[in-house]
Amino acid sequence: MRAAFYEGKQTIRVGDCSPVPPGPAQVQIRVAYCGICGTDLHIFHGAMDHRVHMPQVLGHEMSGVITAVGQDVAGFATGDRVTVRPLDPCGNCPACRAGHSHICQNLKFIGIDAPGALQGLWTVPAHTLHHLPASLTLQQGALVEPIAVACHDVRMGDVQAGEYVVVLGGGPIGLLVALVARSKGARVVVSEVNPFRLNLAREFGFDAVNPQEIDLVQKVTDETATAGADVVFEVSGSAAGAEMVTKLPRTRGRIVVVAIFAQPPKIDLFRFFWRELRLCGARVYETQDFEEAIALAASGSLPLDRMVTGVRPLDGLAEAMHQLEGGGPVMKLLMQCAEE
Amino acid sequence: MRAAFYEGKQTIRVGDCSPVPPGPAQVQIRVAYCGICGTDLHIFHGAMDHRVHMPQVLGHEMSGVITAVGQDVAGFATGDRVTVRPLDPCGNCPACRAGHSHICQNLKFIGIDAPGALQGLWTVPAHTLHHLPASLTLQQGALVEPIAVACHDVRMGDVQAGEYVVVLGGGPIGLLVALVARSKGARVVVSEVNPFRLNLAREFGFDAVNPQEIDLVQKVTDETATAGADVVFEVSGSAAGAEMVTKLPRTRGRIVVVAIFAQPPKIDLFRFFWRELRLCGARVYETQDFEEAIALAASGSLPLDRMVTGVRPLDGLAEAMHQLEGGGPVMKLLMQCAEE
Repeated sequence: MRAAFYEGKQTIRVGDCSPVPPGPAQVQIRVAYCGICGTDLHIFHGAMDHRVHMPQVLGHEMSGVITAVGQDVAGFATGDRVTVRPLDPCGNCPACRAGHSHICQNLKFIGIDAPGALQGLWTVPAHTLHHLPASLTLQQGALVEPIAVACHDVRMGDVQAGEYVVVLGGGPIGLLVALVARSKGARVVVSEVNPFRLNLAREFGFDAVNPQEIDLVQKVTDETATAGADVVFEVSGSAAGAEMVTKLPRTRGRIVVVAIFAQPPKIDLFRFFWRELRLCGARVYETQDFEEAIALAASGSLPLDRMVTGVRPLDGLAEAMHQLEGGGPVMKLLMQCAEE
Repeated sequence: MRAAFYEGKQTIRVGDCSPVPPGPAQVQIRVAYCGICGTDLHIFHGAMDHRVHMPQVLGHEMSGVITAVGQDVAGFATGDRVTVRPLDPCGNCPACRAGHSHICQNLKFIGIDAPGALQGLWTVPAHTLHHLPASLTLQQGALVEPIAVACHDVRMGDVQAGEYVVVLGGGPIGLLVALVARSKGARVVVSEVNPFRLNLAREFGFDAVNPQEIDLVQKVTDETATAGADVVFEVSGSAAGAEMVTKLPRTRGRIVVVAIFAQPPKIDLFRFFWRELRLCGARVYETQDFEEAIALAASGSLPLDRMVTGVRPLDGLAEAMHQLEGGGPVMKLLMQCAEE
């Protein structure tokens, strides 16, 4: 079989690789599709070389079909269509013992700290598996992981029906956060500068605006009778987003930090004091978020197929990475991992 | 009677002033003592001249005795010993309508936006009054307002018995936050650089450390079996505090921003993502915080008399301001407002 190896900054090698037979409590999956995530781009840029042991197979947004089942695996069989919740917590640290195993202090993220899904046959712990309903295509199934991120973000933001929500950043995660928030009954404004992504957000029915062209603070102030937004999601990871995020919420409004800020931005703590704002970080997902994501995807209410702007062979991974970082007319790219 | 007027940066004039008779729903109070708050110092430095209409009488941490009662005042009579919750909300903005009138979008803070307590006779709305129990001296009663700040901060931080709490900054509010958190059953570490304040915190029984001399992150890590602190209060208002505040909490730990940051500091948002930290701002107090503060003060369990490091005549206000900003062996200074 073939696998895509990250071998250092901007370097991907696609080559032959021996499948790993599933050990006890493991399964082997024939990987159908694997999406590329912002974190994969960070790794491709060399920003996480302190953490990633090279050569490493990346990839964790996937769908596939089980090809082999190890001992002591219940509930999953060869031929099952699945996706993977790529978290392998230690089970023993204070975070795990407090019930926060998804942010385990020794978390092994499969696809970063252990080999990922950008290969033909992938062997993973059975505890990571979720069945894909028959109503979902395998391409749609590869979107479950980022949808679960969005479900977790929206849950951390405690979005309620009727609330006014602003999403700063309209990339794949930003749009999924907007879609999940709307599914809760919220009114959602998407802020984005890329024209392609702005248009897609509008096609999805969102009030999508370019904050370089309109006064977003004034818009939110006007539309909320001076109150401000109930919840703001910072998904842009930009200094502009970090500055905007404290200007929008109402008194005791909530801010959810979804983006990864490599450098600490300046944050207006006075505004937190003045309006008693609340901010929380949201990272990955818990089991319930994956279950919610699968149910939401299977409901057919999300425009998942339009999120996918390209499907590429595994050999095209480096090119896909470059295209994604270029910021052009691209949203989610899926890689075909197993050979036909 | 006499009053102390703020007349511009570093300028206080103490002079004669005519008492204001109480109108409907107002009372007039003979002010016994009035403490000096960090906000008063900000004003004295000229940092709030955009807001303060000069000449203005400052002061809002007070105790006194009612001298006259206007029409339509129930529950208060001449001779009653009282303190004032110096908030005058509009009652009509989105924050007020949402039940957050203490952070009303048009809040009039009495002592900043309206004349304060640094005068012999002070006329205020009756809705701001709280009775002082007989067990409290008038000097102790002047501490109710800052204790209420601390009660609000600790409530916003949701401090629970048995939790590990770090207070960054051991000035008057920091020590009161530490005392209130301890009254909830928390284990409290105080971080402070001023030797006098460090010693006072230790006299109060706290584990008080100088973060320039010991590795506070390592201490907290060691003492929590690597988990981190449950709650961290940022009361220092310093860049060092803003940097430290994200390093200390456990996964899903809470940060309460109490200090006023005039300039946005750099904040490690990655750490919020990584540990799913939560941060909230806390401003002034609600009615229940004042009631809790009075009950706690009256319980005798707080070392209130030792918080007061000086009592001065009104003529000494400018000198007291300079002493407080000097950062020496000083904690809370009370001004005697009414003439003997």
